[in-house]
Amino acid sequence: MKTNPGLFFEDYSVGQVVNHAVPRTIGTGERALYHALYPSRHALFSSDVFAQSCGLPSSPIDDLAAFHVIFGKSVPDISLNAIANLGYAEAQWILPVYPGDTLNSRSTIIGLKQNSNGKTGIVWVRTEGFNQSKKKVIEFVRWVMVRKRDFVTPAPKAVIPKLKNVVSSKDLVLPNGFNFNSYNFDLSGSSYIFEDYTIGEIIDHVDGVTVSEAEHMMATRMWQNTAKVHFNTQARPDGVRLIYGGHVMSMARALSFNGLGNAQMIVAINSGAHVNPCFAGDTIYAWSEVVDCADTSEPSVGALRLRLVATKGEAGVLKTEDGRYHDDVLLDLDYWVFIPK
Amino acid sequence: MKTNPGLFFEDYSVGQVVNHAVPRTIGTGERALYHALYPSRHALFSSDVFAQSCGLPSSPIDDLAAFHVIFGKSVPDISLNAIANLGYAEAQWILPVYPGDTLNSRSTIIGLKQNSNGKTGIVWVRTEGFNQSKKKVIEFVRWVMVRKRDFVTPAPKAVIPKLKNVVSSKDLVLPNGFNFNSYNFDLSGSSYIFEDYTIGEIIDHVDGVTVSEAEHMMATRMWQNTAKVHFNTQARPDGVRLIYGGHVMSMARALSFNGLGNAQMIVAINSGAHVNPCFAGDTIYAWSEVVDCADTSEPSVGALRLRLVATKGEAGVLKTEDGRYHDDVLLDLDYWVFIPK
Amino acid sequence: MKTNPGLFFEDYSVGQVVNHAVPRTIGTGERALYHALYPSRHALFSSDVFAQSCGLPSSPIDDLAAFHVIFGKSVPDISLNAIANLGYAEAQWILPVYPGDTLNSRSTIIGLKQNSNGKTGIVWVRTEGFNQSKKKVIEFVRWVMVRKRDFVTPAPKAVIPKLKNVVSSKDLVLPNGFNFNSYNFDLSGSSYIFEDYTIGEIIDHVDGVTVSEAEHMMATRMWQNTAKVHFNTQARPDGVRLIYGGHVMSMARALSFNGLGNAQMIVAINSGAHVNPCFAGDTIYAWSEVVDCADTSEPSVGALRLRLVATKGEAGVLKTEDGRYHDDVLLDLDYWVFIPK
Repeated sequence: MKTNPGLFFEDYSVGQVVNHAVPRTIGTGERALYHALYPSRHALFSSDVFAQSCGLPSSPIDDLAAFHVIFGKSVPDISLNAIANLGYAEAQWILPVYPGDTLNSRSTIIGLKQNSNGKTGIVWVRTEGFNQSKKKVIEFVRWVMVRKRDFVTPAPKAVIPKLKNVVSSKDLVLPNGFNFNSYNFDLSGSSYIFEDYTIGEIIDHVDGVTVSEAEHMMATRMWQNTAKVHFNTQARPDGVRLIYGGHVMSMARALSFNGLGNAQMIVAINSGAHVNPCFAGDTIYAWSEVVDCADTSEPSVGALRLRLVATKGEAGVLKTEDGRYHDDVLLDLDYWVFIPK
Repeated sequence: MKTNPGLFFEDYSVGQVVNHAVPRTIGTGERALYHALYPSRHALFSSDVFAQSCGLPSSPIDDLAAFHVIFGKSVPDISLNAIANLGYAEAQWILPVYPGDTLNSRSTIIGLKQNSNGKTGIVWVRTEGFNQSKKKVIEFVRWVMVRKRDFVTPAPKAVIPKLKNVVSSKDLVLPNGFNFNSYNFDLSGSSYIFEDYTIGEIIDHVDGVTVSEAEHMMATRMWQNTAKVHFNTQARPDGVRLIYGGHVMSMARALSFNGLGNAQMIVAINSGAHVNPCFAGDTIYAWSEVVDCADTSEPSVGALRLRLVATKGEAGVLKTEDGRYHDDVLLDLDYWVFIPK
Repeated sequence: MKTNPGLFFEDYSVGQVVNHAVPRTIGTGERALYHALYPSRHALFSSDVFAQSCGLPSSPIDDLAAFHVIFGKSVPDISLNAIANLGYAEAQWILPVYPGDTLNSRSTIIGLKQNSNGKTGIVWVRTEGFNQSKKKVIEFVRWVMVRKRDFVTPAPKAVIPKLKNVVSSKDLVLPNGFNFNSYNFDLSGSSYIFEDYTIGEIIDHVDGVTVSEAEHMMATRMWQNTAKVHFNTQARPDGVRLIYGGHVMSMARALSFNGLGNAQMIVAINSGAHVNPCFAGDTIYAWSEVVDCADTSEPSVGALRLRLVATKGEAGVLKTEDGRYHDDVLLDLDYWVFIPK
């Protein structure tokens, strides 16, 4: 059979390296489309002139767009037979991606643990993305629950990787020459800077967007993410297409402009979970909590640690009395962002 | 509160200048998307080679696309709390926008008049768009009905700006070097020139397009127009998304190719009104009336003044017996366009 | 009447040449959109670096995207009054199309035959596409059934062109410098080469995609294909929009990546038929049959002749007992493709 059946739990071993297929040259076309799919307004990713005022050669590809490209490549090898994408950790943006860059990615298996039911197991992978100069642009860890092909295969030795709860602010990577010394607050659309945010502060981003089938499929295809459940109404018993979690992530990040307009550049994801499924017709809202703040080596640039929560319908209860997420919560994302001081 | 509540009627004063946020580098990606969203076929905006034959360095960004970018930036400051976009006047295209240009815009408040109900008022603004060289590319006047925050605030002194009914043909701006001396009528797709049109002539553009949710949202987001009613089914009591008036404008202009294939470049809007709301599922048709014609300083280029009417369903009665627009009329736009002589 | 009524059967004569309107500069924006509309993963059209490893200057515009651009231009002159697009033959890709190229096309009438009902006739045209250097990039023959304007017009002399059943493998055109000597099978996403495929082999491409209104309209508009039935729910008595046959072709070709990941470049279409109409909501699947194989003048490059069948719902019976296509078959396409040896 020449088609790709995907890998099953017993096909993975700790230390194994998988080179993912289909390198991608990403350009201003993908940027235009990204900005038509999400209400993105962060000036750094919208204007070459603004990006140059921040010390960059031109406007990079949106942080999460680069993430989705690297992630998408790993889907046919890592999550084609996955039941669930369980979590993220240690994600870092290391080099900006510019229009014309060609990206590819590879994953290393760093952990394995068979579930007690004997039918599935958890696979931890560290995925790294590289540009045409073989320089690393992004890396992240994710773990997924994967089906076994054959339930009688004995369980592998369990290896659970030690992952940081939080990327240390000291490890955040400032792009070469990046600074906010000539930052124009009229153009950025917000007057709030690093010092204006306080730990524990909650920001309701107010706006909501009702999602449509065509849009989430176009977004997901753009990243060459091939998971069937996003495209084929016959792939799920309920006959509806599941929206790619990354679509919710990008939508929530774009909505967060309203209240976090100067939170220009995502540089790390500490943890993240796609809590409930999202379907066309749902209206996505978002709110953020300021979790921490830190200096960087560049005096004009501060780092905020934010928790971004996306909900179906306006924000309500986050967790129910028994400590589980409320049904309306779609995403709970903990990340670091650069903001002017 | 760090989110943008928008400005209310009493926040504006005559003479006030508002610099709009989020500059935008616009490129061939936006052009590709524009041509996928509208059946645009005017050769000047489709082919670099054709544009060069008209004396331009390359194909500019579509006239209305540039307009929507400049307009979209003004939405968070001018029309977030608007009830209605009442009209346009004195719109002019001053410099073509080319792929790679970075646009921003600012508005000056030129008029204010509180409505007799004490709850709303009319705000007139002149919005100007600039490129990265700080050269003006587009300007236009629009007026909107805006909510008051607090009904007891006293009314400001009414200032109603004197606006031209029509942009004088003498004021239309020919791009540097622009001419139709080497115009290829096989490639343009129409053999009709300036002299073939007569004042009073009506042209039914025949074709119709049924609009879909995904398309109008992608278009509207591309211009970074954030008005909630276009994206959120929960933003209106009837649960439907209102289609951005500019989407209807671009659709009607594209449909007008069939009958006005050589009407290459919009250079002014004399007046315009979004007469009735448009929703997904509506089928948009258009017809034009030739209102006036004029020479320009370039002998190969004529100017036609056209009235472009967009309707829901095929063209019927424009106005009812009591002089009001018929329910099926969506747009009534009066503009100048350049056409070969 | 200044609108284009299209040509009717009696307007064509054998030998007549029609220059099609609206040249188009095609760029990386169109590529981004193509990859968002179809799950395209062939590395040659995804990565500049990969294309360079195959001896090309950069990644060309997708083979079928270039085809659709050339085809789309012919619609207003050839098929506006067509009842059906009956078939293709002798299609060849002669030069790759690169971002920035400007394409136009012309058709020559090569055959005519009035149908016995006296109301319609068949028109055969050879359509050729050219780039800005007036070099031919693509050519193909298609034949369509076209309405007569006036049934009493006498039938023209029937001329039925002699068309090749198959483009000879000797006539397939290798782009200058094209080779697979440095081919990277990790990056291409498939390890199967020319020698791994056997004549008669059937490959089920497994994946399915449910199509949506917004997507097929955006695709069809991108090619400036103006046929009303694709855009206007009022254009057909059943009130539904017919999906452009080229959309099914591109979808099926993209799905065929799963099983034919190294079948990088379509170089000829031997024959093709849009067998049944496709509508939004249909889920498109595809399977291929290996029909023939051949060497090329470049030792690293082989040619496979493939039959690509697209179906509504998973593949079932191709033809019914009476030899007609089953209702679920959408497309039957016979083409040549280059693949590494």
